[in-house]
Amino acid sequence: MTHTSINGGRLLRRLETFNEIGALPGGGNCRLALSDEDRQGRDLLVTWMKELGLAVSVDAIGNIFGLRAGAESLDPVMVGSHIDTVGTGGRYDGLYGVLAGLEALESLNDAGATTRRPVALAAFTNEEGSRFAPFALGSLVHVGALSLDDAYAIKGIDGASVGDELRRIGYAGAARPGAIKAHAYFELHIEQGPILEDEGLSIGAVEGVQGLSWSELTIEGQSGHAGATPMRLRHDAAYVAAEIAVCVRRIAREFGGYQVGTVGRLELQPGLVNVIAGRATMTVDLRNIDEPLLQDAEARLATFVAELAAREGVSVKTRSLARFAPVIFPETMVSMVQEVAQARGLSSRRLPSGAGHDAQMMARVCPSGMIFVPSVGGLSHNVREYTVPKDLEAGANVLLGLIERLAR
Amino acid sequence: MTHTSINGGRLLRRLETFNEIGALPGGGNCRLALSDEDRQGRDLLVTWMKELGLAVSVDAIGNIFGLRAGAESLDPVMVGSHIDTVGTGGRYDGLYGVLAGLEALESLNDAGATTRRPVALAAFTNEEGSRFAPFALGSLVHVGALSLDDAYAIKGIDGASVGDELRRIGYAGAARPGAIKAHAYFELHIEQGPILEDEGLSIGAVEGVQGLSWSELTIEGQSGHAGATPMRLRHDAAYVAAEIAVCVRRIAREFGGYQVGTVGRLELQPGLVNVIAGRATMTVDLRNIDEPLLQDAEARLATFVAELAAREGVSVKTRSLARFAPVIFPETMVSMVQEVAQARGLSSRRLPSGAGHDAQMMARVCPSGMIFVPSVGGLSHNVREYTVPKDLEAGANVLLGLIERLAR
Repeated sequence: MTHTSINGGRLLRRLETFNEIGALPGGGNCRLALSDEDRQGRDLLVTWMKELGLAVSVDAIGNIFGLRAGAESLDPVMVGSHIDTVGTGGRYDGLYGVLAGLEALESLNDAGATTRRPVALAAFTNEEGSRFAPFALGSLVHVGALSLDDAYAIKGIDGASVGDELRRIGYAGAARPGAIKAHAYFELHIEQGPILEDEGLSIGAVEGVQGLSWSELTIEGQSGHAGATPMRLRHDAAYVAAEIAVCVRRIAREFGGYQVGTVGRLELQPGLVNVIAGRATMTVDLRNIDEPLLQDAEARLATFVAELAAREGVSVKTRSLARFAPVIFPETMVSMVQEVAQARGLSSRRLPSGAGHDAQMMARVCPSGMIFVPSVGGLSHNVREYTVPKDLEAGANVLLGLIERLAR
Repeated sequence: MTHTSINGGRLLRRLETFNEIGALPGGGNCRLALSDEDRQGRDLLVTWMKELGLAVSVDAIGNIFGLRAGAESLDPVMVGSHIDTVGTGGRYDGLYGVLAGLEALESLNDAGATTRRPVALAAFTNEEGSRFAPFALGSLVHVGALSLDDAYAIKGIDGASVGDELRRIGYAGAARPGAIKAHAYFELHIEQGPILEDEGLSIGAVEGVQGLSWSELTIEGQSGHAGATPMRLRHDAAYVAAEIAVCVRRIAREFGGYQVGTVGRLELQPGLVNVIAGRATMTVDLRNIDEPLLQDAEARLATFVAELAAREGVSVKTRSLARFAPVIFPETMVSMVQEVAQARGLSSRRLPSGAGHDAQMMARVCPSGMIFVPSVGGLSHNVREYTVPKDLEAGANVLLGLIERLAR
């Protein structure tokens, strides 16, 4: 049996051209959501979609869809991901899934293939959540889990609002969010972890997405002179923040398994060598594939924080930035990935996703699934993020195979 | 016996007028060294000095001196402090000592008094060290412990250099640093700690200044995805920084006595909720009145950092920002403070200074001492820093008494 195959060279060239946008001096990319770099990327994507004859629509939260018509007027098969990055991001996180989808559609064009169902290529707004919380903002609005008004009002780390920034870059589109109803959704993505590389496998069939709990803690202590304030009279916000960060690590170690915990942001005020910090702001990121364990981790941390705050005479305010329960993809979607991989002679295994993705939001409204390809060194959210060309090509071929199977 | 007394109302009015410069919206002051606010303060001080008939000179590091002539051509008695503040500073730290000196000289003028020795009022550059390290930069250059070239080359937290900023604000003066040789030096200052208030005393006779060790640690780990990177494969700079901050507290608690330890600055890169920090920069401030104990504390911390870095697979570079051994003031200078206080009916006790001061640098070149007045709540380096008017007046009267005694 022969298959339609994607054009690997063309996919790599598109990735290279696109990644000139927001390129960082030392490698990697910065295309924070709704920034000028994000706008440039959106413009290029729309241009490329139109070159392939796709019908482009932009909805009110800035999600971009390119529709390839099918033989029948049915709900489309949807594939896609996102083009925004974290502040010091890599070349593939998000972008690969979008451009591999584009490549799959161009390959169908090249083959003169007509599918029964239409196929929609999606690029969702603000998947990373680095500038605006929660992450996966665009897909959350798409599935109706977050209202447009609430989304517009969200303020970013720089104080700008989602609504203002969407209008500023010209991507507050006319389409109603959720207007396009997907028959099914597949998202191709780099693994962002070390498992496939360790085991020498090409394809990951993603069973589900870890539950995620993001919170921001604001610690109010009392600033004072670092030399003349005896230790017993201190209410040191920096010390309290440090103890909390150490506790996050301790919880992750003690729980083991898929539990992870990270303090990625920590800011002190006034932030001077000889002044006891009067205020600290920090984030905590906890994830587990098991919801009761994730709740345990949250409770353990909350208890520790409350006891520590009482002991040190500081106040701690905790604000939830995002909370998602683990998502389990339908068994048929997971096994379909392995079947298509096998049909193309590619090795695979099942594994969970440690990272959040638009696919977990799409799972609320249609059968959804994900395909992973290996990340060298497990690196992601890192300028040295890398996946070898052979694996990029393999993943795109599996995506094409899944489109053909679902849309036929 | 009657004494010449200072004019308390005039002193308070001068403090109020001066503190309009760099006033923060919620109270307190920001006059970082060599900033525009510092320049405005310098301009006002020079104006006031000239109004009293003092001979004003500015040296090449920006130290300002106002000289009141004596009956004989002898080395002057010097009093003074500094007018710069930390980023969120109070109204009295530094400024009080300078304006109380000015008030003492005006009171001598009012009384038509002639002293045998001249009296010099000094305002030293960058005492706080918040913008440029090391602290007490102006007095260090004055006593010859730091060359002018080395001082000019120092870069601040905003990247600007001392030399450029001195020239920019017009205070790279013509006088040679150290040209004025003091017969003796007294510095009046708020305590910045809670001891005098706790014991209901008016005056502190400062026995010496705690030794100080400031270092900056740069931790290089590896950034990565906060969800997909297993705990065992992390090289998390934020976690390492947090463990170090907790260790600083542990050392201070275990040593007890006058040992203090503070992490006042801690910055993470990239500083995002869902990215493991690849780099952390932090400062450590350790102080003790006992030099061998201070060295023990430094060694304990260095050992902990080395073991932690090896265990977590990160590199840690440690750079000394400042290091001063404890300073013990001459017994005659300490007892003179208590004698003058007693003669004016003021209660006093001896105590060490937990903070660094220009007086500890001046102690290298002439008999030096300090007078403390109580800080309400022990607060300093804090916008709520406060000393009651009665105590401000008492301290200025002791300063005047010491000038009369040393200059007669």
